[in-house]
Amino acid sequence: MTKFKIVIEYDGTNYVGWQKQKNGISIQELIENAIFKLSGEKTSLFGAGRTDSGVHALGQVAHFELIKSFSLENIRDGLNQHLRPHTIAILEVQKVDDDFHARFSANSREYKYLIINRRAPLTIEKNKAWGVFKKLEIKKMISESQYFLGKHNLEAFRSIDCQSTSANKTIKSVNLIEKKNKIIITVCAKSFLHSQVRIMVGTLVEIGKGKITKSVKEIIESKDRSLAGVTAPASGLYLEKVNY
Amino acid sequence: MTKFKIVIEYDGTNYVGWQKQKNGISIQELIENAIFKLSGEKTSLFGAGRTDSGVHALGQVAHFELIKSFSLENIRDGLNQHLRPHTIAILEVQKVDDDFHARFSANSREYKYLIINRRAPLTIEKNKAWGVFKKLEIKKMISESQYFLGKHNLEAFRSIDCQSTSANKTIKSVNLIEKKNKIIITVCAKSFLHSQVRIMVGTLVEIGKGKITKSVKEIIESKDRSLAGVTAPASGLYLEKVNY
Repeated sequence: MTKFKIVIEYDGTNYVGWQKQKNGISIQELIENAIFKLSGEKTSLFGAGRTDSGVHALGQVAHFELIKSFSLENIRDGLNQHLRPHTIAILEVQKVDDDFHARFSANSREYKYLIINRRAPLTIEKNKAWGVFKKLEIKKMISESQYFLGKHNLEAFRSIDCQSTSANKTIKSVNLIEKKNKIIITVCAKSFLHSQVRIMVGTLVEIGKGKITKSVKEIIESKDRSLAGVTAPASGLYLEKVNY
Repeated sequence: MTKFKIVIEYDGTNYVGWQKQKNGISIQELIENAIFKLSGEKTSLFGAGRTDSGVHALGQVAHFELIKSFSLENIRDGLNQHLRPHTIAILEVQKVDDDFHARFSANSREYKYLIINRRAPLTIEKNKAWGVFKKLEIKKMISESQYFLGKHNLEAFRSIDCQSTSANKTIKSVNLIEKKNKIIITVCAKSFLHSQVRIMVGTLVEIGKGKITKSVKEIIESKDRSLAGVTAPASGLYLEKVNY
């Protein structure tokens, strides 16, 4: 058996998310099917992050094992061919040691969130960003975002569906930059709670609108989901990179 | 009568192009319909550039006239509301003098072409760029692109459908930059022949692949369309800006 690590890019708009589900087509399942078409082998594909429906990836990572022998190029090009016309692409393939695990070996995950702050609705970035129509106070959002840094109990920033036993998470970095009317928020941590980045972004946006007047520090300390902001739409979220 | 200038952004994927046609829905027609829904007035909308089907715009410009009085904000927000769910948005509206004409008053038009040079098919940028799989020789493309600068007879770089009486065009600037695996080609001129930018890009790409060995200088001088490259796909082309 040879273990392979793959780096995957996808537009998540038309899928139920990374993980296999009964109510629609998942990215995991489409790639497992492509591996079967290429190799004739039934495999299990393990992903680094379970992105929700509509969330995109620039660098999702997964691993799987094959009995037969294939070159790295054949796996990449073959999977991409069998994945057509889906908006899922294998960017890189490499052989990894037996003890590598896409999920458990990851040291950190980097997410990016794209907001377009303007009156006009989105066209070219439709389904690829969150269009926020009200003018945002960016400086306030930048200063507030820095309270997320470090280790916190993020009870206020997880969805009710979150199954994690602990809400303690350590945020390694969080950055908010503005380029014309684009706002890009990047967050890096070893792991995340369910919907955590989207609730962090929704909270910063409501602070930027002046709708939330409490500081992020207070909201974290409250451990109260109702004090945090809306869950920002999936369409603006990108799993950018997984580090090992 | 008041004359208005509007700046328009669109994802051209699902339309027959800017101009009204019998075989499908055009952007011009959809905006004229939106103006009618807003004002009750039948107007003619004049655009600065006739983008083809699948071509996008970040800053198309058009003008129209209305008898009734509307605030600029009402026009922008009202048209955007009536344009839903189309991927067409009015970014700006301003009043202009009677002698302003979106097409004839323009001093120059700027087009951008986006190429993604990698083995994997496009996902997030599907329909928004040209995916070129073979590795391109960028330095050669940059140096060759500079032969386009200035006034030339561009007979070799126009489609057989081009109705322009003269093929003489003056290219004010042409730039090719590479950012990771993205290649962005920008071209500025007072006006363009039909498919000119796409044939320029197709030619540079075939030079970058080593498929065309003649220089751009020789191809221009030949006035022979068959020596130039393919017409690059519409999906990578953006009408970026119109200057007055």
